[in-house]
Amino acid sequence: MDRPEGLIAALDIGGTKIAGALVDSCGALLARSLRPTPASEGGETVMASVEQVLAELASSPRWPGVRAVGIGSAGPVDASVGTVSPVNVPGWRDFPLVPRVAAVTGDLPVVLTGDGVAMTAAEHWLGAARGFDNALCMVVSTGVGGGLVLGGVLHAGPTGNAGHIGHISVDLDGEQCPCGARGCVERIASGPNIARRALSQGWRPEGDDVSAAAVAESARRGDPVAMASFDRAAQALAAGIAATAALTEIEVAVIGGGVAKAGDVLFEPLRKWLGTYATLSFVRDIEVRPALMGTDAGLVGAAAAAAQSLSHLGPFRAEAGSL
Amino acid sequence: MDRPEGLIAALDIGGTKIAGALVDSCGALLARSLRPTPASEGGETVMASVEQVLAELASSPRWPGVRAVGIGSAGPVDASVGTVSPVNVPGWRDFPLVPRVAAVTGDLPVVLTGDGVAMTAAEHWLGAARGFDNALCMVVSTGVGGGLVLGGVLHAGPTGNAGHIGHISVDLDGEQCPCGARGCVERIASGPNIARRALSQGWRPEGDDVSAAAVAESARRGDPVAMASFDRAAQALAAGIAATAALTEIEVAVIGGGVAKAGDVLFEPLRKWLGTYATLSFVRDIEVRPALMGTDAGLVGAAAAAAQSLSHLGPFRAEAGSL
Repeated sequence: MDRPEGLIAALDIGGTKIAGALVDSCGALLARSLRPTPASEGGETVMASVEQVLAELASSPRWPGVRAVGIGSAGPVDASVGTVSPVNVPGWRDFPLVPRVAAVTGDLPVVLTGDGVAMTAAEHWLGAARGFDNALCMVVSTGVGGGLVLGGVLHAGPTGNAGHIGHISVDLDGEQCPCGARGCVERIASGPNIARRALSQGWRPEGDDVSAAAVAESARRGDPVAMASFDRAAQALAAGIAATAALTEIEVAVIGGGVAKAGDVLFEPLRKWLGTYATLSFVRDIEVRPALMGTDAGLVGAAAAAAQSLSHLGPFRAEAGSL
Repeated sequence: MDRPEGLIAALDIGGTKIAGALVDSCGALLARSLRPTPASEGGETVMASVEQVLAELASSPRWPGVRAVGIGSAGPVDASVGTVSPVNVPGWRDFPLVPRVAAVTGDLPVVLTGDGVAMTAAEHWLGAARGFDNALCMVVSTGVGGGLVLGGVLHAGPTGNAGHIGHISVDLDGEQCPCGARGCVERIASGPNIARRALSQGWRPEGDDVSAAAVAESARRGDPVAMASFDRAAQALAAGIAATAALTEIEVAVIGGGVAKAGDVLFEPLRKWLGTYATLSFVRDIEVRPALMGTDAGLVGAAAAAAQSLSHLGPFRAEAGSL
């Protein structure tokens, strides 16, 4: 099949790396660029790295086919005004990323979403949420993020942050979260919190590795403290997923990120706890699936979100099928 | 202004009454009918009452202008197949209400939603959520129900139950809810639970009235136990509203129902607790407002939901303005 002409230049901006790619209407990445995020530097230094990534992409012979720029950024973002304030990039607070990117790309249309929303767009387009009209996609990793597809369409919300399941409280008297609230899903279920809880309850790693991955390895070998820490994370995730289902009637929850790599150590207790929290007739049959898109989900999803948002652009959109 | 011709026959079906009205495109009720719900009788007896209400409406000289029937029913409902299973009407389990109503109304189009969704449609059309593109509307009463407006459109969900905030868990280790889950918003914040908690912690009513309204009256006079019970309800509502905001980016939460009549006794601690749970930049400014529509909200909303769903019908829709 001939590849259509229209491309989207995608950026995936996180606290450790800035990735870029030219994405075609099949979701293929035709050119790539990658730089570390100078996260502790000033805002202009971070922007200079973004500009370097874009310059590398612009040097591709494919660049003339680019119709728009799609950005998925660590949050919070404010898509309504085009600014970003990533928690892990202190030099960027209300940083006007959208106009700055437009300025260096010849005023191409620029579509900004949060990284959880971008990952969701990718899983819905080509991954585990494909074919579902109502879906929650989550990343459970250092933090917990997410996004929603409702009625067949990506639901980014007015500011591009919708689906922020990591910071809903499922334990209203629980431990304080760095966000200021109490008992957030992230405070219980993120990788660092799984490891912290296991250590505090007596888990001892085999070597130096005190990550959630090491806890998962111990749990797989039957260590009861390691298993209990994953069980608690699964309980919080289940309560959050069930809440999302009661509120929005999602049919599937897709879970990716480092913690999801624990596999059955996470998914088995998660399905058990969903039986406790997802009780209403219209949420009872919710499916839980591991994510299918890999580390490129952010790039593919940023392109997909831009394509949906700019569907009047035509060529890319028309080929994008389920988008 | 001339009233347009197109009308919707609206039904509001609850555990105690079945209300009907002809609703015009301004939200005015042109004819009414009301029967008690024979909730403990068999399903056919309940249906006979619905048919009596419809027959009374059909005797109106306005009936020939009816373009569709809109039903808001106590839930759960399943709008995808047209059935209802109201918790308080045991004779109706997967009862095929939509085809039965179509059969006695000359095969008019029939649109079914849950009662929380219907109330939301009314508040968005003519009440406290008017002008907001993203809103949660709630009824806090014997139970806790709700509905969502997202992107300017009523979000009923595939089965018509979306916005079911009463049964999201905000206390994952909390008390068991009749739905089977733990720590649901309703289990903490409904009227009967406000009264139960106050009584169990030593509140003594002035007379025989042990309702949440009596607890509110005591709280208004400074009774610390009564105030604490409302404070706890407000905390659960705030956690649920903040969760809804993080997931869907609602800009306003509208609260109606008997418990909302407590006024500042509820709304003051609710706004305080929102400061604790609604911390992210994109949820921090959420507004909380008392509902404006009265007991007719269910009828007006059932009509509004039908009008939105059947917008191809034209006349009613075209006049309905913000719908």
